[in-house]
Amino acid sequence: MNWFYSKNIEGNLVIIEGEEAQHASKVLRLKVGAKVAVIDGIGGYYECEVLSTDKRKLTAHVLNKREHFKSSAYRIHIAIAPTKNMSRFEWFLEKSTEMGINEISPILSKNSERKHIRPDRLQKILISATKQSQKAKIPTLNPLVDLNTFLTSVNTKEKYIAYCNYENKHLIRQLNPGKDVLVLIGPEGDFNSNEIETVLEHGFKPIGLGKERLRTETAGIMAIAAIHLFHENMS
Amino acid sequence: MNWFYSKNIEGNLVIIEGEEAQHASKVLRLKVGAKVAVIDGIGGYYECEVLSTDKRKLTAHVLNKREHFKSSAYRIHIAIAPTKNMSRFEWFLEKSTEMGINEISPILSKNSERKHIRPDRLQKILISATKQSQKAKIPTLNPLVDLNTFLTSVNTKEKYIAYCNYENKHLIRQLNPGKDVLVLIGPEGDFNSNEIETVLEHGFKPIGLGKERLRTETAGIMAIAAIHLFHENMS
Repeated sequence: MNWFYSKNIEGNLVIIEGEEAQHASKVLRLKVGAKVAVIDGIGGYYECEVLSTDKRKLTAHVLNKREHFKSSAYRIHIAIAPTKNMSRFEWFLEKSTEMGINEISPILSKNSERKHIRPDRLQKILISATKQSQKAKIPTLNPLVDLNTFLTSVNTKEKYIAYCNYENKHLIRQLNPGKDVLVLIGPEGDFNSNEIETVLEHGFKPIGLGKERLRTETAGIMAIAAIHLFHENMS
Repeated sequence: MNWFYSKNIEGNLVIIEGEEAQHASKVLRLKVGAKVAVIDGIGGYYECEVLSTDKRKLTAHVLNKREHFKSSAYRIHIAIAPTKNMSRFEWFLEKSTEMGINEISPILSKNSERKHIRPDRLQKILISATKQSQKAKIPTLNPLVDLNTFLTSVNTKEKYIAYCNYENKHLIRQLNPGKDVLVLIGPEGDFNSNEIETVLEHGFKPIGLGKERLRTETAGIMAIAAIHLFHENMS
């Protein structure tokens, strides 16, 4: 079954427009009566039957609806500086979505070389990875803000910082079951010592992610893997 | 310190030629007397001082040598079908090298859409990721072979197969400390039932990698993360 994303769902009627409608009509060549899966991006999953389709608009009838589709007992939030090479950050968005992440906060730190991102382009990657991995909730992508602004906005209790110190106790040894987790990942070139001090003053606990030297985007993925594997191994 | 790879190390003399020599001279503009790190790709790490440099050849004098640099107590071997979109497989090679892998076996299965790979191009990615993540041993990349040929060549005792069955017990719950591990990852479109049967007959144990639906290359990365995190959490 093909997966679509639509915010335009009223009662039992789903309307899909733009690129997804064009893809359905021109590439997938869906016909009236075809079954499709539609997600609303906020946790709702709809099994539908196509009512009409052309290159600009697809309408479908909801056969079956599920709310809070595949919701998790814990939330994962990663704060990370976008990489100089944008494809690395885009790859992080795709993989973190597949593996299961709830919120991504792009941050600017002193060593950040990339000062701008294109939220619309990144949002498309998140939508595509959400559909591809058959989830109903698109991860929240926050606006790019500087580290200090980010720190004042945090209200997660279980919060960690990963920077290049291989002496820090591994994340997987510090987690608590079923708690929402925020992990702040050092940028390419790492945080400077003032930044680390400020973050620690905000109550973040220092963590390690193993003995390997990881790129920033790989560290982000490793943190997500550790959180899921901790819960797999505990439950 | 900049990292280089050379197979041409005799006594205390290191010779670097080709692209790496050009990069050293034209981009990094290294001068005589500069300190560089050189790896031999098989576990040797050499701290060196540049003796001469031009765009075709760099020579260096070994100051300090370490054998078995950062070697691990366990070997990780992943057998995986190259993805249709080659960049996904190349990404897998980069990330698995960063995270720590010893051997990669590209395999052909019934559902493999990609029947050819370019070993020289893939080898460059492995060398680059090995240097970037400051390791001395380049993972072994085996030739692409069909699944049956691969199975007859296996002599690892601890061997697992990951395919799309979310009932299988998670890899992290089946591992044993300090053992070499082989994980065979299902291709895009998964193994067919005959293939799974054959693999199980060869003594592979079925595993899960969590409740998320992962692309083949992401499953490979998740398996590596699980093996390292198991050991982090055990030791």
